[in-house]
Amino acid sequence: MNIRRMHADDFPAFWPTSQQIIQAQDSYAYDPQLSEEQARALWCELPQETWLAEEDGVVLGSYFIKPNAAGPGSHVCNCGYMVAPAARGKGVAAALCAHSQQRGRELGFLAMQFNAVVASNTVAVALWKKLGFAEVGRVPGAYRHRTLGLVDCLIMHKWLQQPAASATTAPPVQLIARKNIEAVVARKRRKDG
Amino acid sequence: MNIRRMHADDFPAFWPTSQQIIQAQDSYAYDPQLSEEQARALWCELPQETWLAEEDGVVLGSYFIKPNAAGPGSHVCNCGYMVAPAARGKGVAAALCAHSQQRGRELGFLAMQFNAVVASNTVAVALWKKLGFAEVGRVPGAYRHRTLGLVDCLIMHKWLQQPAASATTAPPVQLIARKNIEAVVARKRRKDG
Repeated sequence: MNIRRMHADDFPAFWPTSQQIIQAQDSYAYDPQLSEEQARALWCELPQETWLAEEDGVVLGSYFIKPNAAGPGSHVCNCGYMVAPAARGKGVAAALCAHSQQRGRELGFLAMQFNAVVASNTVAVALWKKLGFAEVGRVPGAYRHRTLGLVDCLIMHKWLQQPAASATTAPPVQLIARKNIEAVVARKRRKDG
Repeated sequence: MNIRRMHADDFPAFWPTSQQIIQAQDSYAYDPQLSEEQARALWCELPQETWLAEEDGVVLGSYFIKPNAAGPGSHVCNCGYMVAPAARGKGVAAALCAHSQQRGRELGFLAMQFNAVVASNTVAVALWKKLGFAEVGRVPGAYRHRTLGLVDCLIMHKWLQQPAASATTAPPVQLIARKNIEAVVARKRRKDG
């Protein structure tokens, strides 16, 4: 398995996986009507970086990494992972998560936070716990599961490195969250009354 | 006190409050270097709606309301509140929060979630609890407080209405989360290597 940066022209090979996961409505809070172009923008453009796992030219899965918040929250990163159905049970998610933790450290993040792990997705919950993530919160009924109805979402967290004394009040290496703010500013407001 | 929709041309009167709160770095995870234009976009354009409290033509405070997530998470809303320093201790935040809960119900949201209430902001934490919000999570060290260093963030939650049986698997009245997705798609990717 090789893990490398994912580029826009890699997305068509990943879209069947992405589409299936989004439309299943059992793990991601994405609009199930997302077009390929919208999904590509969400997965490959909004995040700070996107990485791809492949073997013999076949896409096994992907993850993104981005700051979970701006300014005084920019030392915590957030990631999302998707694994192709045919590649499940082979440790791809664990490999992607390990890679993302190392990448998070390299980018200067002190911790990683998942904001909405769907509680009924027991395979994911068990994997994140095995990889060192703690359940630090549970939001009742925050996910409208396609077949189970309203299910809880878990907030999960892991420290990636010991904060240096200087890091507790100074910004981390890169003020990357600025990127998302620019996205907002560049946006035209949609008239909604 | 009158609470009405806030428009782009109301922002200059609110900017001194917004700027002071953002630069204090003790409650909001916004980049402290935000320009007025960036702050206006974040407060007035990205959210679904923005409301203003005023008295005798003076801005007392403001709040925004937006879906906290897309698709299967779009039945939960998220709000942010800011009160002018001179107007504190007069119940403005409580009035804005009560208004936002009613507005959330009208927009079809089933619950309201705060993702990062800075734990050292004890006045806010106590107010939200008094107004019926439950602490459903605590993320260690997720906020880089300007003077206290890394402090915890609380996740707080309140049900706004009883979910109808149909609401548990069908989308709520408005698929508003689509709006944010369009913002992403409209955005140009910044080259970051």
